[in-house]
Amino acid sequence: MTDSKIAHRAQKIESERERTERRGIYRDKRLERERDVLHGEWNSLNRISLSNGTLPAAGSSSGSGPGVSLDSSINLDQGDPALFEEYWRKAGERFNVAIGGGELMSYFSNLNSMCWFLLPELDVSVRRLHRLIGNAATEGRHVVVGTGSTQLLQAVLYALSSGDSPDQEPLSVVCAAPYYSCYPEVTGILRSGLYKWEGDARSFDKDGPYIELVTSPNNPDGSIRGPVVNRGDGKVVYDLAYYWPQYTAITHQADHDIMLFTFSKSTGHAGSRIGWAILKDREVARKMIKFMEVTSIGVSKEAQFRASKILGAICDGYESLSPEVLPESFFEYSKRLMIKRWGKLEEAVKLGGGIFSLPKFSREYCLFSTEFTETRPAFAWLKCKEELKDAEGLLRAHKVLARGGSKFGVDPTFVRVSMLSREDVFDAFLERLSAIKGGITSNGSHA
Amino acid sequence: MTDSKIAHRAQKIESERERTERRGIYRDKRLERERDVLHGEWNSLNRISLSNGTLPAAGSSSGSGPGVSLDSSINLDQGDPALFEEYWRKAGERFNVAIGGGELMSYFSNLNSMCWFLLPELDVSVRRLHRLIGNAATEGRHVVVGTGSTQLLQAVLYALSSGDSPDQEPLSVVCAAPYYSCYPEVTGILRSGLYKWEGDARSFDKDGPYIELVTSPNNPDGSIRGPVVNRGDGKVVYDLAYYWPQYTAITHQADHDIMLFTFSKSTGHAGSRIGWAILKDREVARKMIKFMEVTSIGVSKEAQFRASKILGAICDGYESLSPEVLPESFFEYSKRLMIKRWGKLEEAVKLGGGIFSLPKFSREYCLFSTEFTETRPAFAWLKCKEELKDAEGLLRAHKVLARGGSKFGVDPTFVRVSMLSREDVFDAFLERLSAIKGGITSNGSHA
Repeated sequence: MTDSKIAHRAQKIESERERTERRGIYRDKRLERERDVLHGEWNSLNRISLSNGTLPAAGSSSGSGPGVSLDSSINLDQGDPALFEEYWRKAGERFNVAIGGGELMSYFSNLNSMCWFLLPELDVSVRRLHRLIGNAATEGRHVVVGTGSTQLLQAVLYALSSGDSPDQEPLSVVCAAPYYSCYPEVTGILRSGLYKWEGDARSFDKDGPYIELVTSPNNPDGSIRGPVVNRGDGKVVYDLAYYWPQYTAITHQADHDIMLFTFSKSTGHAGSRIGWAILKDREVARKMIKFMEVTSIGVSKEAQFRASKILGAICDGYESLSPEVLPESFFEYSKRLMIKRWGKLEEAVKLGGGIFSLPKFSREYCLFSTEFTETRPAFAWLKCKEELKDAEGLLRAHKVLARGGSKFGVDPTFVRVSMLSREDVFDAFLERLSAIKGGITSNGSHA
Repeated sequence: MTDSKIAHRAQKIESERERTERRGIYRDKRLERERDVLHGEWNSLNRISLSNGTLPAAGSSSGSGPGVSLDSSINLDQGDPALFEEYWRKAGERFNVAIGGGELMSYFSNLNSMCWFLLPELDVSVRRLHRLIGNAATEGRHVVVGTGSTQLLQAVLYALSSGDSPDQEPLSVVCAAPYYSCYPEVTGILRSGLYKWEGDARSFDKDGPYIELVTSPNNPDGSIRGPVVNRGDGKVVYDLAYYWPQYTAITHQADHDIMLFTFSKSTGHAGSRIGWAILKDREVARKMIKFMEVTSIGVSKEAQFRASKILGAICDGYESLSPEVLPESFFEYSKRLMIKRWGKLEEAVKLGGGIFSLPKFSREYCLFSTEFTETRPAFAWLKCKEELKDAEGLLRAHKVLARGGSKFGVDPTFVRVSMLSREDVFDAFLERLSAIKGGITSNGSHA
């Protein structure tokens, strides 16, 4: 044997010894692993109840288990759409998906489309749904899918601000207050040289090009909105996440250059992280696709596949293409739920004797449901009496966690509360809200 | 009737007329829609073949249909892992997933974890797989999931560069050339004020803190790498996308502060967009989670669920927890395929008479497969003779699309070619490569 062969064999023997040792460790680890798996399954079983407001906040580990107990906080800070879950649990097999181990494996979805990562089935379902609801024009438009409308917003900012000149000033991004609290965060997180958050559109007075975000119905206050800056050198991005019949009247077919929608708010499937943009301009679409390609090489196909199936099956139901028609279609069901919740909330606020007030919404004719209807937003935008000062603190003192006005660019007498929580959480919220009466101390806390 | 009631009724009648009209349009649209659906299904059926190289490039619409015809270009520019598909198609039910309409709906996955959007099942499967393969330490580490390792890379850059001071200089990001062509793109796309791409780590001589990306085995050239700058004020990010037994010997359990892995390259499920980071430092994990929260509110649960199922079932197979054991486990199968392909490629290059050359790889003992083995990278890093100058152009002239050296920070005599294409595409590539002989014109094109 040569020296090098001997060295190799010695190395091999040593390696095998190590491996045998590792196998021993494996056996010890198996118990640990099985414990891990059981722990995982426990978490999984408790997932829904854990995630719907019985714990103080996402990421906290200070509580566990389902149910709303008297001393636990109710989390209505995020807008997790739990109230739609029951419908989907009972909705039947048409909405289920099955994916084989060898399916949906490629990066690519459709090489015949500029948006090469968009599943053709999802493109079809999105267009069908908008035609059915009548809330947005899709004919001749580009559809671009994103990891939630959050990623699409960044893609839009990139598309509108990335010019040829490397030393251009960052483009101003504005939105009329109260604005969605995530806009400043998303715009500012990487300190981009392409664009910059400039706050409330109403006080925006810089010259030159800008981007105005218009959310309608608005998050947090549910108001129906249009642009407020209205200058020729501005681009308007319409975030229409809540322009669906369960939240507001579909008064017209929206037909803007740039419109964003999301699976999270249309059907309540927030965990899928699927959003879509409807775009008139090919160049804007191309740049958005480029952004998605560079930052995430497309969008999860499993999520796209499931969204296409669910949106498609909703359309089938309405169009009676499917033999199995539910007693109640999703948008009727969810609208009925929202009406019921808003009725209860308005009652509770009225009984509160003026401590809190709610925005007023006008009645409009809904082309989809063919009846007059009020906006019933996904969030309640509560305002407390001026002298109470801190609406978020007031709720927190009653173990209700919600998001204060300052995060939305307005004063802290406002607070945003999710209307989409699980039923028992919503009822507990109403109970706690009703308990806020009299005995208010001068600093706004409740004695 | 009051005036306003009459006005309302008039509005209602008008709206109903419009709606009836829209219904008429719907009927006309149904045929179009059915055509769309059929078109979608056609695309879907052809998805795999379309996406694996028979078309010039993603996003092109200049070709259609499956199969490699004589006059169509072969696209080996991207690393779409099509060669693993056959295994998964035959792998059986253990790797399938089914998701009910009401499942995985919440934003939240686990409120007991700092990474609130990570499915506990995926956390368990990732740790199990690394223990099985022995390629990375996970004990006591944080696991953070991302929309592919691409999003995680951005999260890492954010985590390492976002300090308290708003007017800090952008942190330098470097990687030894040849570096993965996406690094400069991802780092530069938003012109972040937090970090800045500074190119080849070997020529980096700026003072102060920096981030060095270390890809091992390296994309594009398959080399086993460590950091090259080695200064105290640097942070090293290990991209270990290819540190799996089908590509290289598992010589040690990697145990770095920051390690990135991806589902795309470990099993070939690129369409899922699932990556994970293994992190020692809690603060780095916290900031990465924050980045993911702001930019995409977590990661698709369908994709996470499927990844957890597939990775878990692989582990079951090796650990015989599952009754149904495949004749060949995934990593043995894929290693065998890679050995076969590399054998064929080396043969073809040898027959080319020196027009192209390949990197040399040393034999190392693999602790997982308990045998000596060579690195067989996911990409072939071909170098053409100096006088031929343009390796990418040379291949393009023979209808093989690949990525030239300049995109990786080196000279254009290099070109990166995917080794993971479908079998017939790979064979066609070898055939075309073998045809490149003699008759070279002085400008490097093939007469």
